Amino acid sequence: MALFAFVNDVLIAADEASLGISDLSIQRGYGVFDFFKTLGGVPVYPDEHLDRFFFSASRMRLAVGKSRDELKEMIGVLMKRNEIADSGIRLTLTGGYSEDGYSLARANLVISQHPLTAPITAEPNRSIRLMTYPHMRQLPEVKTIDYLMAIWLQPQLREKDADDVLYHSNGVITECPRSNFFLVTDRGVLVTPGSGVLKGITRMKVLELVKGKLANEEREVRIGELHGAKEAFITSTTKHVLPVTAIDGLRVGDGNIGPVARWVSGELYKLAAPEGAASGRF
Amino acid sequence: MALFAFVNDVLIAADEASLGISDLSIQRGYGVFDFFKTLGGVPVYPDEHLDRFFFSASRMRLAVGKSRDELKEMIGVLMKRNEIADSGIRLTLTGGYSEDGYSLARANLVISQHPLTAPITAEPNRSIRLMTYPHMRQLPEVKTIDYLMAIWLQPQLREKDADDVLYHSNGVITECPRSNFFLVTDRGVLVTPGSGVLKGITRMKVLELVKGKLANEEREVRIGELHGAKEAFITSTTKHVLPVTAIDGLRVGDGNIGPVARWVSGELYKLAAPEGAASGRF
Repeated sequence: MALFAFVNDVLIAADEASLGISDLSIQRGYGVFDFFKTLGGVPVYPDEHLDRFFFSASRMRLAVGKSRDELKEMIGVLMKRNEIADSGIRLTLTGGYSEDGYSLARANLVISQHPLTAPITAEPNRSIRLMTYPHMRQLPEVKTIDYLMAIWLQPQLREKDADDVLYHSNGVITECPRSNFFLVTDRGVLVTPGSGVLKGITRMKVLELVKGKLANEEREVRIGELHGAKEAFITSTTKHVLPVTAIDGLRVGDGNIGPVARWVSGELYKLAAPEGAASGRF
Repeated sequence: MALFAFVNDVLIAADEASLGISDLSIQRGYGVFDFFKTLGGVPVYPDEHLDRFFFSASRMRLAVGKSRDELKEMIGVLMKRNEIADSGIRLTLTGGYSEDGYSLARANLVISQHPLTAPITAEPNRSIRLMTYPHMRQLPEVKTIDYLMAIWLQPQLREKDADDVLYHSNGVITECPRSNFFLVTDRGVLVTPGSGVLKGITRMKVLELVKGKLANEEREVRIGELHGAKEAFITSTTKHVLPVTAIDGLRVGDGNIGPVARWVSGELYKLAAPEGAASGRF
């Protein structure tokens, strides 16, 4: 099935969709994006993702050139055309066709849709191992396209028998390249780094749902806290809640998927399912 | 005049040259490049630039897919087609059309040519003011396309009445976003940062030409050394030798273009001129 995508105002077959070589993403790695999922044909938390997209664009001095309603309309057209019930929708905004290869120009907007590669389930059905690495993303609160380090580290992950990277900076844990990090302390407190991270929409929803139900803190997390933790997990739009059972080759807790991860995953699933509170049909 | 460019093996009008939206430069800011000039139709230091291009590609785990001779042949075809005597030639190698938007694919190679925006002259005909900023490029020894911070800082430059940025990290000076930094100490020693920088071809040529003629050091340069300096200048392929007369609003030396910058600029010009030692006709 041939998918379609928008390049600015043009709806075009995705495999013919392109940007000219003077675009500042190609020349200078300059751009932002956001990514949300649809489940059963319904966007999940679209307003939260669009909020963040406009925030990222503004922080990077890029004009989206469309209102929120215009974006929703384009997304609706795309979904109707592509007919993928469970999908990821990506909005990318680049530095545009720069005359001198350096100065910002009128931003280019790309909207594309892709089938989800793994189903979202209530119960975590796998777990992962992390490798820590000293790095801080540039402008970490902005969802830029800068994944240079993350992609560059892929072979090291394989060598170290790890599935993903956990960044830290001067002994302080921040995030994984494409997900947020949570741990459950020995006292049962759910903790997630409060700064130096991209504030994920799934992260926000986890913090909302545990409010009043589970002791929790957004704060600085030091690398030494990892090994006393009872549980750890990461969250993202596509990974949902993914338990972490080892970090740098050391077991987290008893090395199994923990009760907090299971509970959070289940509660979050109820919200995100097509009939749930997150339903963003528009 | 319509310019041409190569996208992989295809020579195409530059304003129609494009990369598909699944390319990892657009998706993830992943790519490397190199850039050399031609003067009077003759490439300047092409082998040094090609060496570095292959080095950057290799460090970023990208296969160029062409031999050095094949690249030279393509560059020759491009130069013949475009007929720009004084130009910049840019080779860009990206992460390729990734199936999953994250894993490296077969690299895409783009070769483009642009008229030089400012002539290269023996005598420096202008000077600039720098603003320091705390930042270290990722994998600084590799010429990646990551200029996120540099472009993001442009409005701050204008606010601070500066022309370019000088990065430092924990009190140690490294480089400008697109050029190397030199200073002349109060004792008359020419000093340039020895690590944490992209080793520019012009930087290398400056170090070669001063050998035995002027005391010089490649070493750690601390930010405190800036204000005792007699002179400062930056070097790059397009900027040649560009004197720095102020840093963070403070005058460097007597605030005028200094004798070392003048001498280095003149000597370097003799090498780079079409009839000079750098002639890379091929």
